[in-house]
Order: sequence, then structure tokens, then C-alpha cells
Amino acid sequence: MADDPQLADYPVQSSDKIRFADTDRQGHVNNAVFATFLETGRVEILYDSRTPLSVEGGEFVIARLELDFRAELKWPGHVAIGTRIASIGRSSMKLSQVLFQEGRCAALAETVIVLIDRRSRRPRPLPPGEAARLRTLTGATVEP
Amino acid sequence: MADDPQLADYPVQSSDKIRFADTDRQGHVNNAVFATFLETGRVEILYDSRTPLSVEGGEFVIARLELDFRAELKWPGHVAIGTRIASIGRSSMKLSQVLFQEGRCAALAETVIVLIDRRSRRPRPLPPGEAARLRTLTGATVEP
Amino acid sequence: MADDPQLADYPVQSSDKIRFADTDRQGHVNNAVFATFLETGRVEILYDSRTPLSVEGGEFVIARLELDFRAELKWPGHVAIGTRIASIGRSSMKLSQVLFQEGRCAALAETVIVLIDRRSRRPRPLPPGEAARLRTLTGATVEP
Amino acid sequence: MADDPQLADYPVQSSDKIRFADTDRQGHVNNAVFATFLETGRVEILYDSRTPLSVEGGEFVIARLELDFRAELKWPGHVAIGTRIASIGRSSMKLSQVLFQEGRCAALAETVIVLIDRRSRRPRPLPPGEAARLRTLTGATVEP
Repeated sequence: MADDPQLADYPVQSSDKIRFADTDRQGHVNNAVFATFLETGRVEILYDSRTPLSVEGGEFVIARLELDFRAELKWPGHVAIGTRIASIGRSSMKLSQVLFQEGRCAALAETVIVLIDRRSRRPRPLPPGEAARLRTLTGATVEP
Repeated sequence: MADDPQLADYPVQSSDKIRFADTDRQGHVNNAVFATFLETGRVEILYDSRTPLSVEGGEFVIARLELDFRAELKWPGHVAIGTRIASIGRSSMKLSQVLFQEGRCAALAETVIVLIDRRSRRPRPLPPGEAARLRTLTGATVEP
Repeated sequence: MADDPQLADYPVQSSDKIRFADTDRQGHVNNAVFATFLETGRVEILYDSRTPLSVEGGEFVIARLELDFRAELKWPGHVAIGTRIASIGRSSMKLSQVLFQEGRCAALAETVIVLIDRRSRRPRPLPPGEAARLRTLTGATVEP
Repeated sequence: MADDPQLADYPVQSSDKIRFADTDRQGHVNNAVFATFLETGRVEILYDSRTPLSVEGGEFVIARLELDFRAELKWPGHVAIGTRIASIGRSSMKLSQVLFQEGRCAALAETVIVLIDRRSRRPRPLPPGEAARLRTLTGATVEP
């Protein structure tokens, strides 16, 4: 993953407010909460209120998460979440994400999301229209 | 609520394992997690695998929670959860609960649960069979 | 508690962003997360960055929570949290709080917070300066 | 990661009880809770009550998480967590972990943990005694 990530390279920008309950006895935000912040970035693409990825009878599930912890997140404060689509497959996509607090990168992540059939729980192809919209979210850094 | 609560007075006994992530920066289990432990006791009555409270098209929701914190809960360890039905109304019931860790009472709680219609979200009467089963869970301390 | 609570009656206004992970299998925000939102309002008084309640060697802990659930909280969205000091005792205070989503009251709560000594874990008196600052947060509705 | 993982290949066995609040509106256990279950396995090595990894002034933090989701986790139930030390470096170690529910593998994970100095937050070497104890937890599958 990138050595010096910039939030501006991620076309979808979200944020979360860090909660007191996100901390653990080590005094910082618990590591599992990083995965929750990444989810915030993901779902704002998948369920975007203007143009949600709507696939009748389908559901997006996470298949793989790679998460590099670069710095601690501290309460109180906000976390800025940058997300871009890194690649799009037949029934899946890979997202690249970053977490920042006060201008400092706290984490980088890659996530694989798969579209499954709600009933059979098996992968199904991304509809062309949805794939096209996702391609608009790839961001500058992956373009030639 | 009782001054010297005994776990044995609560006919439904559950337990939860305290997780590292349940702690907060004060070093102890975060107060909101107490409500999660109480939920464990409640759902083991509502969704009991042998005799679940099954009400076609109905759903149980919490209407009120009163929670007295008596002691800190510490990680690592388990929490013992005692639950009894304190009273049964037309479409609701009141539960009395206690949380214990290593023989020490950490919390007492009273919860009001209401049966609502899944669609209208309005209260609906408890079926007689369900009310009868709930009456078996009132425990020794509330009997004359 | 008040029958028709108004957010404007609570002098300390906070907010939280509802997370996907706050929901449970009933589709709405899990009841324990309401307690987390209340904590957000509390800690913004206790740890206010401009004028934190700083009591050398002391710690604020929650002693009692009364929580009336009025409506479901739904993802996505924000929750507005109103907090006021309802009363101040020797080593404790009572907070009144409300949770709103899109102009609709979702919950009312009263919380008792106690100042304890960090080492002995026993209550200790609120310093006069801190008590005075808390009295400025009682809000219009409790004044004569 | 292994194609057909067996819980028995992981010398440190832990478990967690799945909570109602672990579920999300998709009906299954939320993905971030998988990271919490992995933490349970880790901390039972790091803070083992009989032989804790005690490093005066040091703290273990997570540097990297790779998590393959294989199946949904469902409430109610328990999750079995298998952990083994995959490799040991100068100031870090890699853990391999699996999550199982009712005999079915739900996830595989690799985690890198670093020992840091509590004050400087910089990596520091694992003491030889601690490294030696960790080597006893490598499990059958990584031995020649």
C-alpha cells in the first residue's frame, strides 16, 4: 500500500465522530473500531442516498480486509475516511481506503466486497449500470 | 430495588464473557455494555431455543430501562446475568435483572418490554399462552 | 419525565453520527447504543476542551441511568443529543438528556454521575468552582 | 492462507459468546466484530493470567490485520477462536488465527503485533524470555 497516502486522492470522503466508548483500556481507539470506520466509507458508496447501488435481491458482503495500522486514533475528535474503488471484477470490487485524524494517516486498508444473492448466498454478477457508476469512483491515483 | 440482591433469586441465569473491547479509557467496562449484558438475559427469555416467545408478526421492543450501577465490571472475566419477570401487563412486561462478577453485584436493572406489531409498530396484546409461560419465570422473591 | 420535550430546552447540544454497526438484526439502532449517545452528551460537559471539569485525582462515574425509549433510531442519519444539569449534590449531579432524530424525540434520560477518588473509588465532594460551572448548565426549564 | 483450516492446528483455543448486539441490519454478525473475536484470541496470549507477557513499560499494539471472511457468523451461538504464533521477529510477531462456529470455518486471519515502549510509542525488542514462551505456541502446522 502507498507509503505517503493523501486523503485528497480518495474521491469518496466520509467522516465519523469518535466516541468515548470507542476507546479501550489502552487509552486509544480500539483496533476493531478501525474496521467500523472503514465500513462507514463503504456503505456511503453502497447505500448512497442519491444513487444507491440497488441490486434487487442482492446484498454486498465483505470477503477480505487488509488493514495497516499507522497511528493511534484518539478520543475526542473525528476521523476522516477516504475511499476509492481500486478495481472491479465480475461480482466483486476492491476498495482502497485511508483513515486520517487531524491530517495524520492512521490506517490504510483494502477491502474486497462481493455481491451475493440474498437467498442462495452465492456470488452474482454486478449489473453493468452499477459497475459503470463504481468506475467513476476510482480516483486520480489509479488512472494512467 | 433490592438492597442486597442474590443471583439465586433470579430464575433465568445467563452469562457473557467480558471482551477487551468492552473496556474504555477509564480501564473498566464501559457503562453502555451493561445494557448489552442485560439484553443477553432478556433475549434468552424472548428467543429461548426450546420455547421461544413466538408471536406471528410481532416484535418485542424495549420501552424503559432503569439501571443502578453498584460496582465496576473488570476485564478479563465473565458476567453472570440473573433475570426474572417482575410483572406482566396486557402488551408489556417488566423484567428485574442483576449483573454479578465473581460473586459481587455490579448492577440492578428494571426493564419494560412491549410487544408491538411488526408493521404498524403499535403495541398489541400478549397472547395468553406466552403470558402463561412468562408467569413461570417470576421467581421466588415475587411470590407471596 | 417531560411529555413533550424540546431539544432547545437543553443548553448543551451534541451530536453523533449513526453507524451501520449500531444497527442490530431488528433493523434499527440497538438499545445499548442509546446509552452510548447519552455518554457523548455527558462527556462533552465533563471533558469540555475549553473548560473541562478537572478534579485532580478524581474521576466521574455513572451511578444510575433511567432511559425512556420513545421512538426507534434509524441508520443512516445523525442523532442530536440535548443535555442539562437537573440538580447538583455534594459529590454527585443529575443530568437530564434527550435524543432526537430529524426533529423527533427518540429518548429521554436521567443520569446520576458521581465524583469518586481515583484511588479509593469512594465519592468525594465536587469542588465549589466545578459546581458553580455546572450550575450554568441547568437550562431555562429548571429555573423558576 | 490455508484452504482447509482445522481448529485443532491452533494451540491456543479461546471462545466468545455471540451477543444480540453483535448483529447488524443484514441479520448476521457485523464484520468489525470478527476483529473483536480475533482480539480475544490475541489477548489470551498477551495477558494470560498464569504467564502474562509482561514487559515493564512496554505495550503490545496491532500493526497489521489480514482477514478472510469465509462464512457468516450467526446469533445465537458461540465462536471458537484458534490462535498460533506464525513467526517471531525482533520486536514483533505474526499470529495466525481462525474463527469457527459449529464446526464451520467463518474466518482466517493473520495479525502482526508489535511491542512498543509505552512512553516513546516506538518499537522495542521482545525480551528473550517472552520470545521463548511465544515459540511454544507455534503449533504443529508450522513445525517441520
